[in-house]
Amino acid sequence: MPARGDHDARRRDVSEAVWRVLAARGFGGLTLRAVAAEMGASTGLLTHYFPNKKALVAHALGLADERTANRPLREAPPGLPSLRAALLDVLPLTPAAADMNRIWVGSWDVALSDPDLGERQRLRYQNWRARLRPHVATAVSQGELPASSDVDAVVASAAAFTHGLVVHALLDPGAYPPAHQTALLDAYLATLTL
Amino acid sequence: MPARGDHDARRRDVSEAVWRVLAARGFGGLTLRAVAAEMGASTGLLTHYFPNKKALVAHALGLADERTANRPLREAPPGLPSLRAALLDVLPLTPAAADMNRIWVGSWDVALSDPDLGERQRLRYQNWRARLRPHVATAVSQGELPASSDVDAVVASAAAFTHGLVVHALLDPGAYPPAHQTALLDAYLATLTL
Repeated sequence: MPARGDHDARRRDVSEAVWRVLAARGFGGLTLRAVAAEMGASTGLLTHYFPNKKALVAHALGLADERTANRPLREAPPGLPSLRAALLDVLPLTPAAADMNRIWVGSWDVALSDPDLGERQRLRYQNWRARLRPHVATAVSQGELPASSDVDAVVASAAAFTHGLVVHALLDPGAYPPAHQTALLDAYLATLTL
Repeated sequence: MPARGDHDARRRDVSEAVWRVLAARGFGGLTLRAVAAEMGASTGLLTHYFPNKKALVAHALGLADERTANRPLREAPPGLPSLRAALLDVLPLTPAAADMNRIWVGSWDVALSDPDLGERQRLRYQNWRARLRPHVATAVSQGELPASSDVDAVVASAAAFTHGLVVHALLDPGAYPPAHQTALLDAYLATLTL
């Protein structure tokens, strides 16, 4: 019987291999065989962890949740600077953030086909908007955004803008280097303050 | 030997089945077996049309291109109204537009994993932005947008906003009914004019 430490180390190896396969081949390329090959292990070993494709996809999304929650976040003063920081935290400005986004964008295909995964994805972005909301509300109360702003609409708009920019930057990194992504976000935020 | 008309009719049946499978199950669920089942045909028949998965995916993307190009478009006066119309043409405001968008959003997973498909997708959105550009340039020359506007940045921003709104509306249709999508777009366009 393997020691507990071996077991945990093996689980981490499996998770790393799942992540690398996803970042390179997306959900369409996420198979037990591909993960096994990435680890230099047998497909049989993998079926011990994942009885089927759905379990593998669920593990991959759990990993993405965990890594998204544990990534370092920018710190900024309350209000508009915090909104900007929270949106910059999402953009693919680094290779690690690009891998993360590539996995989330790829997950939309499965989310739109599976009611359970779709509901989790719906709640994920609803929660994201709920976390952005206090920054927008504070920006209004501090006078950084017009008093007439519809806070929920600004939140929905900023979230949409940011995810769309993620997509375009991933699909065309040459046209959207990090400095350009940041400039587009700043121009977007500037229009809100007028 | 079947008559030419039969051949064309069968090709249309195949394309319809591919489209229905994609709209329901996405690229992750697009298999020869699923398309055959959708048609009530044998997988063997399908291999006559598609020797492998890549050929099936390429056909699906070709269909999406064709249907996107042939869909009815809104007409509007030049400048800002044309920009608005072109962006409304993209949003999932009808069931048919939602199916179309669901397929494009799902295609990003494969586009990010396959260099050929990725390059086609990059050009697709580059071309889309090129088609939006004259509307923005006219809006500036007509004084609907500030003379100081960076036309390319406005185009990139509007395209990002619209695609992000597509994603959020598909993943959470209850929170983004058509009227709300339109209101968010109008609020976004209003910020540009200030």
